[in-house]
Amino acid sequence: MEKTLPQCFVDSFLRVRYAETDSMGIVYHTNYLVWMEVGRTDYFRQMGFTYRDLENQYKLFTPLIEVNCRYLAPAVYDDEILVRTYVKQFNRRLVRFGYEIYRVNENYKLCEGESAHLVVDRERKRSSFPEKVLSAFQKHIYNRKDEASEC
Amino acid sequence: MEKTLPQCFVDSFLRVRYAETDSMGIVYHTNYLVWMEVGRTDYFRQMGFTYRDLENQYKLFTPLIEVNCRYLAPAVYDDEILVRTYVKQFNRRLVRFGYEIYRVNENYKLCEGESAHLVVDRERKRSSFPEKVLSAFQKHIYNRKDEASEC
Amino acid sequence: MEKTLPQCFVDSFLRVRYAETDSMGIVYHTNYLVWMEVGRTDYFRQMGFTYRDLENQYKLFTPLIEVNCRYLAPAVYDDEILVRTYVKQFNRRLVRFGYEIYRVNENYKLCEGESAHLVVDRERKRSSFPEKVLSAFQKHIYNRKDEASEC
Amino acid sequence: MEKTLPQCFVDSFLRVRYAETDSMGIVYHTNYLVWMEVGRTDYFRQMGFTYRDLENQYKLFTPLIEVNCRYLAPAVYDDEILVRTYVKQFNRRLVRFGYEIYRVNENYKLCEGESAHLVVDRERKRSSFPEKVLSAFQKHIYNRKDEASEC
Repeated sequence: MEKTLPQCFVDSFLRVRYAETDSMGIVYHTNYLVWMEVGRTDYFRQMGFTYRDLENQYKLFTPLIEVNCRYLAPAVYDDEILVRTYVKQFNRRLVRFGYEIYRVNENYKLCEGESAHLVVDRERKRSSFPEKVLSAFQKHIYNRKDEASEC
Repeated sequence: MEKTLPQCFVDSFLRVRYAETDSMGIVYHTNYLVWMEVGRTDYFRQMGFTYRDLENQYKLFTPLIEVNCRYLAPAVYDDEILVRTYVKQFNRRLVRFGYEIYRVNENYKLCEGESAHLVVDRERKRSSFPEKVLSAFQKHIYNRKDEASEC
Repeated sequence: MEKTLPQCFVDSFLRVRYAETDSMGIVYHTNYLVWMEVGRTDYFRQMGFTYRDLENQYKLFTPLIEVNCRYLAPAVYDDEILVRTYVKQFNRRLVRFGYEIYRVNENYKLCEGESAHLVVDRERKRSSFPEKVLSAFQKHIYNRKDEASEC
Repeated sequence: MEKTLPQCFVDSFLRVRYAETDSMGIVYHTNYLVWMEVGRTDYFRQMGFTYRDLENQYKLFTPLIEVNCRYLAPAVYDDEILVRTYVKQFNRRLVRFGYEIYRVNENYKLCEGESAHLVVDRERKRSSFPEKVLSAFQKHIYNRKDEASEC
């Protein structure tokens, strides 16, 4: 993998839906991965454009090629959740997001994971991010580094 | 509504997934509606072609305009489920399916409902079923009437 | 049904997740019903306590006995959604919620529906709302009538 | 990790639901993980008892502590899917399942992954599999080794 990038988090807040729980009384494990998708959407928006635009204007898509998640503690219905999303790796053809998910109340970490995405066109052929997106990633990660203590 | 059609059921069997339960310990209510979709898919296949073909070959889609469900008893994880699907109404531009859902073991009815679907093209403009589909509906409903005691 | 209640809406905002779309390119129909659940949760919270408390403190649950939805227009990924929830009917043993769901941008109505819920205890026996909840419903619906032009 | 176990697959077949697709026209990535759950359920049943019994009789649960998936090719609506489940590691307190998921028609591998599960009791305290379950795992994995060419 490329050198480690500064961890510039984009934060998303959401509340656990009843639909997301299972009969163990806790959130069904795949829903944390859906929340990561919420985090990615917010990450793109934070960079100054939307993932929807990437699909609609550039006809580019970013299907997953890998996902993993380590579960530390369960969330339950109505918990307020914080999803912290950052970019672990990016280049023209691939982006790898990292995630940390917390219960807001006790600032308790529930899980952490990552997802890797290829860039493909409408025919699902390998493609690459447009210059605009690449420089947005760059700017977002390195500029925030200078401004915020966290990055 | 048009005159009542003979109730020619197409039967689908499935098993409740853990993912489909909620923290009340029972199946989350929208999953019965997903099972109705399984029933529709099987209904089309039973008629001699697939709903996938309708989309891929004819570029026609059947979005819902209405759904309802009355819940009588809950299913739980690992229950074996029977979905009985029939056509309540159909014409060139609309099809209305009815459903009865049972727990297989005790032949216990869990819910019943219906869904109404328009026919639209790729631009989501109103369209109509091709002749082949209409006659398949017709044949399926009225032929089976003569052959099976149920119809 | 009992006499018509004043329509005191509680408003919830959410954004369409990629996970909620289907291969027709629009939101899969059952997800609107999940958003109605988000609306119910907010409705309870707005009344001054949480549905989670109803389950945890009172050991009461409100399973659905009926749901319906009429679909007028589709939502797509990343749309901002407004769910307007109100109470159509309530008494000790039953509550019926109504919903209107809009795309925020054009204030366009996407669907409307309702859900009816029984009150049951942990053994799934019929029970009734505690006095505190009943009076909260009452207060919420009739007080807001006097204060807000909408109610 | 412990020594490598013989790969005794339990096979599950299912068909892609419309509900499982997303607006990229393919199966949304978390649904493969739900299918892995279907595989686990079948694995337990194949061993001679059900995971439901583990919960209901023994009051034991097996929440995930880790999941990962590598995606090779997408499935689409109505594809027939084969989930091949095997045990990668097991002891009193933990079981790790491996999965390979195929499109049945071309025998094409769509993804592969694994999930690790702890054994906990109703209070979510660490517990261990009952002897009966352990010996069923043992028997299932090693007996099939002798009988089937695959194991």
